[in-house]
Amino acid sequence: MRIALDAMGGDFGPRPNVVGALKALAASPDLTVVLGGARAGIEVELTTAGATSQERLEIVHSADVVGMNEKPTEAFRKKPDNSIARCWQLVAGKDVHGLVSAGNTGAVVAGGFITRRFLKHVKRPGIATVMPSGHGRTVILDVGANVFPKPIHLLQYGVMGMVYAREMYGIASPKIGLMNVGEEQGKGHELVQQTYDLFRNGPLKDRFVGNVEGRDVHTGAVDVIVTDGFVGNVVLKHAEGLSEFILNLVAQDVIGALAAERELATVALKAMVAKLHYSSAGGAPLLGIDGVCIICHGSSDERAISNALGMAAKNVRVGLNDRIVAELATLPSSLSVNGDEE
Amino acid sequence: MRIALDAMGGDFGPRPNVVGALKALAASPDLTVVLGGARAGIEVELTTAGATSQERLEIVHSADVVGMNEKPTEAFRKKPDNSIARCWQLVAGKDVHGLVSAGNTGAVVAGGFITRRFLKHVKRPGIATVMPSGHGRTVILDVGANVFPKPIHLLQYGVMGMVYAREMYGIASPKIGLMNVGEEQGKGHELVQQTYDLFRNGPLKDRFVGNVEGRDVHTGAVDVIVTDGFVGNVVLKHAEGLSEFILNLVAQDVIGALAAERELATVALKAMVAKLHYSSAGGAPLLGIDGVCIICHGSSDERAISNALGMAAKNVRVGLNDRIVAELATLPSSLSVNGDEE
Repeated sequence: MRIALDAMGGDFGPRPNVVGALKALAASPDLTVVLGGARAGIEVELTTAGATSQERLEIVHSADVVGMNEKPTEAFRKKPDNSIARCWQLVAGKDVHGLVSAGNTGAVVAGGFITRRFLKHVKRPGIATVMPSGHGRTVILDVGANVFPKPIHLLQYGVMGMVYAREMYGIASPKIGLMNVGEEQGKGHELVQQTYDLFRNGPLKDRFVGNVEGRDVHTGAVDVIVTDGFVGNVVLKHAEGLSEFILNLVAQDVIGALAAERELATVALKAMVAKLHYSSAGGAPLLGIDGVCIICHGSSDERAISNALGMAAKNVRVGLNDRIVAELATLPSSLSVNGDEE
Repeated sequence: MRIALDAMGGDFGPRPNVVGALKALAASPDLTVVLGGARAGIEVELTTAGATSQERLEIVHSADVVGMNEKPTEAFRKKPDNSIARCWQLVAGKDVHGLVSAGNTGAVVAGGFITRRFLKHVKRPGIATVMPSGHGRTVILDVGANVFPKPIHLLQYGVMGMVYAREMYGIASPKIGLMNVGEEQGKGHELVQQTYDLFRNGPLKDRFVGNVEGRDVHTGAVDVIVTDGFVGNVVLKHAEGLSEFILNLVAQDVIGALAAERELATVALKAMVAKLHYSSAGGAPLLGIDGVCIICHGSSDERAISNALGMAAKNVRVGLNDRIVAELATLPSSLSVNGDEE
């Protein structure tokens, strides 16, 4: 199993990527990591980590780095030899099975769209993320690849999310919900009304439970929530911001009120946060593109990177893309014509 | 000061409304509450509360109740004598200064649109809500009245939110942000791109800080966040669901780990939750319509109702609607032509 890692991606440069790769290698004897990025910088971090001649670790040099706030299309034009493009080229050349990047999300998606085709039957790829819920987890997609989708895109996200929940988390018959502003049929704008009809009257009707609301992300009411990339992205970032806000308040108001057991409570809170933290999931897969791709948070630490590498390896191992193609092939041809008409 | 209260609104029937009204009357000697709803049911609750001949409390009978999940337009056709319509009629007849309802949100908005005009210069009313943030609070609108707005609606929400933050919370120069999927200009779909340009190049440019993301709802980066009613509604409900999820985890994992100070921590957590809870804000104002209107959560308890009555009274007292009209009048006429062209 060979996975490329964008060694330059994220807010902290090569260090968490290099250390995360070493961690992942130690955990998975069948894994080889190919670091894409500036060779000199990578080698410094390897030396610092005391791992100069690490087995199953390769470096493929690229001169440029896409900034975290650069416009993707411009960056790819001005800096064709960037580490994200290099990793996608490794995927395209079948030198690796997949890639992981904590770099500019838009650039990772754009790099995929430039270098790779969509999977057979896929209209438009989407990014899935996994949120903790009362019953385990909820897969939500899209969270940012497609901010103004069509109903057919959302229907296909339902299929991809269902396959993802099944193959990655062992949920035998995932339930799918459509994010809306109320549970009743007829709620919301045209996009969700038309999408509702596609789900309700189509081949996914047995898996579709109907509209869900923002609160259902964490109740476990459904296993998969389908939404447009604008709403999904706002929810993803709102979850981060609100969690941080509440946990800070808990530390201050609740733990701050204690005396003898303050230390005990602090340890328990830290364990709880670690359980919740995005890094425990590792990253968000870009589903629907020909190549396994895990997108990590820009602030990923070595643990997040290591987990994301493990996740990419698992995506490959379970044959996720083949299963997505097979499931989409069961849709009527009007719902599974490849590529987008635009 | 006279405020109408939809006595039938909410998940629990007249009781929390009647008891909340009594609480509000005790707190505000200049307040009169007019209860709209089924006289017999209201009188039972008054008797139970030991307040049969309460001063400054009036009842205006209405025979029907709109169900929490009924379609508003259908409900208004089939049940013209419903408590929400009755309260709006009291506003229209200048018998009261405003109304409060914990009933079907869509029906409260629809009742307003049927009975009352938009305020002068207003294109489309919106619902504002207040979220707790690291620096106090963030006003966010729209959270559900207008799920597919135009850029001009969002610009006007910026004005209304600014006036609301200033008059209700004393923020002298509120900063306005536009909810988006990234901070850089050019992010997002057409609606937010066009709205960005309206803010950036228009009369609000000095108050507009640019795009914000989901995480900024609780960071205090801005005082007002403008968004469409679909995204706003999802964020509002997501905040409820995620808060509940995390606070349950804290109770279980953190407080559950304690022994001697478990009781102390429980008390501190309850106080923290009370501070955060929606009921401390009371309700969400429908801004832009001719009449003060506070919409409460369906699960409102007597405290939430009492707070909402206090909030409605304050809206009236500060002359919120006059100030919104005055502020909108300063916009160029292209941005302040009354009513909607649709």
